[in-house]
Amino acid sequence: MANKYVPTKILLEESELPKAWYNMNAVMPEKHDPALNPATLKPCTVDELKGPFCDELAAQEMNMTDEYIPIPDEIKDFYKMVRPSPLIRAHFLEKVLDTPAEIYYKFEGNNTSGSHKLNSAIAQAYYAKKQGLTSLTTETGAGQWGTALSMACAFLGLDLTVYMVKVSAQQKPFRKSVMETYGAKVIPSPSYTTEVGKRILAANPTTGGSLGCAVSEALETAMKTPNCKYVLGSVLDHVILHQSIIGLETKTALEKYGIEPDLLISCIGGGSNFGGFIAPFIKDKINGTAKYDILAVEPPSCPSLTRGKYAYDFGDTGKMTPLLKMYTLGNGFTPSANHAGGLRYHGMNPIVSKLYHDGYISVNSVEQTKVFDAAVMFAKSEGILPAPESSHTIRAVVDQALKCKETGEKKKIVFCLTGTGYFDLKAYEQYNNKTMTDYIPTDEDLAKGFATIPDIPQNK
Amino acid sequence: MANKYVPTKILLEESELPKAWYNMNAVMPEKHDPALNPATLKPCTVDELKGPFCDELAAQEMNMTDEYIPIPDEIKDFYKMVRPSPLIRAHFLEKVLDTPAEIYYKFEGNNTSGSHKLNSAIAQAYYAKKQGLTSLTTETGAGQWGTALSMACAFLGLDLTVYMVKVSAQQKPFRKSVMETYGAKVIPSPSYTTEVGKRILAANPTTGGSLGCAVSEALETAMKTPNCKYVLGSVLDHVILHQSIIGLETKTALEKYGIEPDLLISCIGGGSNFGGFIAPFIKDKINGTAKYDILAVEPPSCPSLTRGKYAYDFGDTGKMTPLLKMYTLGNGFTPSANHAGGLRYHGMNPIVSKLYHDGYISVNSVEQTKVFDAAVMFAKSEGILPAPESSHTIRAVVDQALKCKETGEKKKIVFCLTGTGYFDLKAYEQYNNKTMTDYIPTDEDLAKGFATIPDIPQNK
Repeated sequence: MANKYVPTKILLEESELPKAWYNMNAVMPEKHDPALNPATLKPCTVDELKGPFCDELAAQEMNMTDEYIPIPDEIKDFYKMVRPSPLIRAHFLEKVLDTPAEIYYKFEGNNTSGSHKLNSAIAQAYYAKKQGLTSLTTETGAGQWGTALSMACAFLGLDLTVYMVKVSAQQKPFRKSVMETYGAKVIPSPSYTTEVGKRILAANPTTGGSLGCAVSEALETAMKTPNCKYVLGSVLDHVILHQSIIGLETKTALEKYGIEPDLLISCIGGGSNFGGFIAPFIKDKINGTAKYDILAVEPPSCPSLTRGKYAYDFGDTGKMTPLLKMYTLGNGFTPSANHAGGLRYHGMNPIVSKLYHDGYISVNSVEQTKVFDAAVMFAKSEGILPAPESSHTIRAVVDQALKCKETGEKKKIVFCLTGTGYFDLKAYEQYNNKTMTDYIPTDEDLAKGFATIPDIPQNK
Repeated sequence: MANKYVPTKILLEESELPKAWYNMNAVMPEKHDPALNPATLKPCTVDELKGPFCDELAAQEMNMTDEYIPIPDEIKDFYKMVRPSPLIRAHFLEKVLDTPAEIYYKFEGNNTSGSHKLNSAIAQAYYAKKQGLTSLTTETGAGQWGTALSMACAFLGLDLTVYMVKVSAQQKPFRKSVMETYGAKVIPSPSYTTEVGKRILAANPTTGGSLGCAVSEALETAMKTPNCKYVLGSVLDHVILHQSIIGLETKTALEKYGIEPDLLISCIGGGSNFGGFIAPFIKDKINGTAKYDILAVEPPSCPSLTRGKYAYDFGDTGKMTPLLKMYTLGNGFTPSANHAGGLRYHGMNPIVSKLYHDGYISVNSVEQTKVFDAAVMFAKSEGILPAPESSHTIRAVVDQALKCKETGEKKKIVFCLTGTGYFDLKAYEQYNNKTMTDYIPTDEDLAKGFATIPDIPQNK
């Protein structure tokens, strides 16, 4: 295998498309603490989760036993249009860096949603449709998830209402246009369409909104609309489950060409791409047989893992969601508006949180001006304009490759390029005009967020 | 072969990437009339073309004999990052249309330039670099070519100045940002940076510009800048040559799975994607052995083929280019500003013009509101938001497929999906808001353009 010729762009056959998703919960040596019903502080039952969520998604969320969960044919047929996605050798980035490292990236941006979000969007819309629902609600921050779900709902004939963080809707008017072209109703959040939105606006009429606040509005609207459920694009375990297709394809491609990775890297916001990317690699890591390290990358402006607390917290500002045990900055935390990309969520997926807590993965944080230095270097050498979120990963990869240059190590670095930056050009303009700045919250800033973490016995 | 399973997304191996471009000029039964030097009205020599153009590109432009022209390794290495592009079976569009037709599309939009333009951009930048040039100039309308060339120049370390049609620069500010991120200097045209720009602005200070005018400015700047040449993304034969990679890959993919097309369709502006897409299919058409028809699609608002004159004309408003024998609306023709997409050029590539004139290809025109109906239908069923240009093709494909539904014909329709519409959302907004209108120039409107076709003996 060692001398097999490896093409620049490793493409899998349609027959190599995964037939089942990978469920990390089934192989965790110690399961993460269960979601709690905030009213009772007891573990949520599947039936309780079926309140806001689709039946099948609630069941997937609670599945702690099945390592593989079959992908329905209808979803596979959709995947076949856009997947398998390529694993690309970054020959030209390596050359620019003059590094002995080998760099590979799994490129998830080659679809109109511009990111990996479509992998879960189509699955969630499919289960909603199968259950006989006629509409869905969701929130979106950077806009990738909202676009992906709009596409999936248009494909399956479901109505969709998207609460889009107001500041993001203003900065990215065309994200709104794409979703509307796909037939979605897009409402800048906070809005006067919900009670929680009205409360937030009464308290702070000029707020630009936050993801936690948009979640609350979407949830409230789903609860009061007949035949409608709430879905979301990150944080929960079933989202990570669907995103495991990224890691499964990556693993197949690497094994096909006998490439043994030394390091797997991806950025982390709520955990959706990171969790999916590392999913099939985690078992060997847990068993101690893996030769590779796994690195998550986050922005210092929203440092959930690097500076957050491991505690039960709400997923939203309106305190309507189940309580999740996770690394959190507090449901009231809002990152500085000068932070360009996504990765703005206060919390973190429970599996990823547990893996970090138990030492299976490590985390770095990288500042946004340095992130954009790397983004432009990548765009020029590899031809793809990366999303700001993905560019955090690229920065970390570049730093690792430069370290290899110093040490002479021929590390094989594999990363997930989650998406493209075509709707993030305001941020690139700031970078080009040198008006982009970095922001690191002080301990006092963080203390305000931590104060919103619920004061419950489980957090003592 | 007939029963071989055909995947939804037909992917070629890296080893199936074409090793040579296909030169239609070598197989034309009758060559098109040569480009003329406007000063002498005699056929241009290669040396004369080397004035404004790179040496190798001038030589390719005049090559009437070599059917295959090898692709240099450096260009092949770049292609390997983004090519071969997929040929996708439009299963879901077929289902929506309930048609017995089989629809396949060659998707050229999966790169940051958002279109096929990168195929020629990297080739042109490569030859410029090889010749020792340090900078290039060009024009761009919709912005796809400017973006593609910015990427190619950034990759190879060349400086680039792009004259962008002013109205387009205003409508698509983020196109400008992408090019600037790749290091290009973008100047809305007409501008005060050139003599021709000053003249045009003196005559019409509020003009939104035109492609013909931007060509003149780019040419003038190239001529007065040391170590700099002018390049362009369509119209000339060497551009079609580079774009033949689209058709070559399409042909390989079809043959690999035993798919025999009945109809090849693509949109046409200056001819770059259309010419490249049909290039390797034209020989059998000329020989009379082809079972397929070839259809070009253009907007009625810029009807070069359907209503133009076959005559010698300038490629630019400033009358600085060689004279080309082509279908033209007159170098002074400017399509109505309400026309959303590209496909706004007054002329047409000479090979394509000749093929049309000699009856090897046919042409349809489709109105823009109907074009966007089809675009949204495609976006919802196939998941890709198409560029307005490509959507003209989709409209024609849908019409053909609906005709098959009536007749019961199981036609195999293959089309080129040239690009994505991520930077064209103003047009989609107009469509969504129902403020988009159609425009068909009157005979009087066209007469004004025709009056600008030069009055030379060859045009008598």
